[in-house]
Amino acid sequence: MTADQLVTSQSDERSVGLVETVTATLFEPPGALQLASGETIGPVAVAYETYGQLSPARDNAIFICHALTGDAHAAGIHSADDKKPGWWDGFIGPGKGLDTDEYFIICANVLGGCQGTTGPGSLIPNSNDRYSSAFPVITVGDIVEVHAALVRHLGIERLLGVIGGSLGGMQVLEWAGRFPDQLASAIVLASAARLSAQGIAFNAVGRRAILSDPAFNNGHYYDGDQPRYGLALARMLAHITYLSETSIEMKFGRRLQNSDEFAYDLQAETEFEIESYLHYQGKRFVERFDANSYLRLTKAMDYFDLADSYSGLANALGKTDARFLLQSYSTDWLFPTSQSKELVAALIESGRHVTFAELDSPFGHDSFLLELDQLEDLVIPFLAQTQQEIRRQVPPTI
Amino acid sequence: MTADQLVTSQSDERSVGLVETVTATLFEPPGALQLASGETIGPVAVAYETYGQLSPARDNAIFICHALTGDAHAAGIHSADDKKPGWWDGFIGPGKGLDTDEYFIICANVLGGCQGTTGPGSLIPNSNDRYSSAFPVITVGDIVEVHAALVRHLGIERLLGVIGGSLGGMQVLEWAGRFPDQLASAIVLASAARLSAQGIAFNAVGRRAILSDPAFNNGHYYDGDQPRYGLALARMLAHITYLSETSIEMKFGRRLQNSDEFAYDLQAETEFEIESYLHYQGKRFVERFDANSYLRLTKAMDYFDLADSYSGLANALGKTDARFLLQSYSTDWLFPTSQSKELVAALIESGRHVTFAELDSPFGHDSFLLELDQLEDLVIPFLAQTQQEIRRQVPPTI
Repeated sequence: MTADQLVTSQSDERSVGLVETVTATLFEPPGALQLASGETIGPVAVAYETYGQLSPARDNAIFICHALTGDAHAAGIHSADDKKPGWWDGFIGPGKGLDTDEYFIICANVLGGCQGTTGPGSLIPNSNDRYSSAFPVITVGDIVEVHAALVRHLGIERLLGVIGGSLGGMQVLEWAGRFPDQLASAIVLASAARLSAQGIAFNAVGRRAILSDPAFNNGHYYDGDQPRYGLALARMLAHITYLSETSIEMKFGRRLQNSDEFAYDLQAETEFEIESYLHYQGKRFVERFDANSYLRLTKAMDYFDLADSYSGLANALGKTDARFLLQSYSTDWLFPTSQSKELVAALIESGRHVTFAELDSPFGHDSFLLELDQLEDLVIPFLAQTQQEIRRQVPPTI
Repeated sequence: MTADQLVTSQSDERSVGLVETVTATLFEPPGALQLASGETIGPVAVAYETYGQLSPARDNAIFICHALTGDAHAAGIHSADDKKPGWWDGFIGPGKGLDTDEYFIICANVLGGCQGTTGPGSLIPNSNDRYSSAFPVITVGDIVEVHAALVRHLGIERLLGVIGGSLGGMQVLEWAGRFPDQLASAIVLASAARLSAQGIAFNAVGRRAILSDPAFNNGHYYDGDQPRYGLALARMLAHITYLSETSIEMKFGRRLQNSDEFAYDLQAETEFEIESYLHYQGKRFVERFDANSYLRLTKAMDYFDLADSYSGLANALGKTDARFLLQSYSTDWLFPTSQSKELVAALIESGRHVTFAELDSPFGHDSFLLELDQLEDLVIPFLAQTQQEIRRQVPPTI
């Protein structure tokens, strides 16, 4: 995500305003979470934020699944002088795509993350040690188990919708397969039923960069230096895959950063504007992200294969009666349109209601964070129709 | 280049057989080579190989410009039990695309390389020290200056053709701009008049991996460990860009290497077949390549901008009367067809003879090393016609 492009004005009247990240503790003894790997973990702290009001019928809740490096802070600001609103602030608020005048929005940091939810940097229960390398390898299914438990913990039986882009979209798909009755609609943006082999390849190189950084020290670096060279490198590489060739050409081209002439100096690592930009992204990333989390979340992404987990895509998606909205982006080469179309075919095969659109955008994979007007045009009526259907099915009990 | 795919049978009757890399010493005092950076270098040792016989009229010579990590050993074997022929062996030999029954083929290692031609790992003249970090940053123009000098050294006034793919293709284009009278034809494969910003981005991350490897030691590592983690990482990353998504899916898909089940182990760095393949490529690469060369050759690639150097593409390509053959590949996303078409447009504008074809191949950028039958079909008649034209223009002097 190109966070610098997402900063909106603090004076935005359509902002959700001051918000707070709160923490729920789930999977307390003896109810530890059983992971796909066979290991168990518990208790699990879950950091989340909510925006808007839950309706008395508890039928207006929407859960946001964040992408690889996102967090629970999707909208609003944390203090009056906070200059950086949540990562999807342009899409969440009064009158926005996820309209907080209408809906109760929940966003939680993922299991294995590093922004409040239990992850490798968390303390092991009843211990002064951090999990570090002892934190298990997790799956998208494990992440969704925690999300689903949080929803139940909040007293919500069924969500009006679950929405997410990229790894977030994988969580939405997994949710539909794993807890088919817990959602009335699913919105999947720039995502797929599985990561492509090319995507696995890029993730593998990123992890290699972290693992081969001497500061990584087998994951035990919390008392010393982070493996910041490796983590920055992984981020720089991944960042290229989030942009399209078109957007890189548009934004940077072959322009030099500080000169009209070549430096002929290999130490001038930020000679071209695109180099300088990637270095900046890498540097900023290590200030906010944990390498151990990065390793696990990319691995969860690699492992995700909906068809393999549920004996076929149509089977995975046929158990829910949720309505589906899928959106792909013309220049997204990490999660190309062909993968969305494969999902659409499976949804049709299993008799599901599905709306699909490929949006023509130059911004590549990042489009789901940037092309918000067009997304609004699709999401607002889709959610309204979903709610209308629900309320028609279940007459008010009062 | 996926070298493991290029190994051909030693018993191939169409092989050029036993060959030897020889060395010429050029730019001896006082004639040091003036580089684009303003620095000078000399003498320059140039490692090269030749195949076939130079005609009495010296009009059948073809120069091969190798790509980023290639070398002078393009065809044949170095010893009777050599199991690995030259990198383009499938394309060079009796009756092959570059027919050694007809033509005299020259291939030289590039300036700044690490396979015999003067580069960062070479000894500084009259010294026991290697150049290391003192080796200058070079350009494609500098590389071509050395090639052109070698051709003169071999007593050849005009080449029948210059051929190259990728960075090799850039050299061919530069040659046409810099020494327009030295070539009768130019064959440019999977290349472009400039590297895209996305290409610069990938190169920048690769260089960063090398520079941030502690073993790099500012380029002074020849007496100790190579920065092999960084160099392997750079290679793994670059390798992804040489393949197409289609070819990765075809060859590896999401298959696991040694198991039907996930390992749930982050140390299992070669869990998916594609991971294992990339690790293997990285590991093999560090055995044969020098990090200091890699830094300089990728930088030369980044700097290459034919239009910028010669006040426009049409101007750069209009000074030669060489005939042009351009070939792009449908799934090559590093040097997409659109870039070849830009060259074709400039060649037409400047009134040049040009043949262009986009080949439908699944192999991405690597196609020029793999799709040899189709290349033969184009190159054989193109060279024959070029030679026919030359011989028509210049009546035999005997």
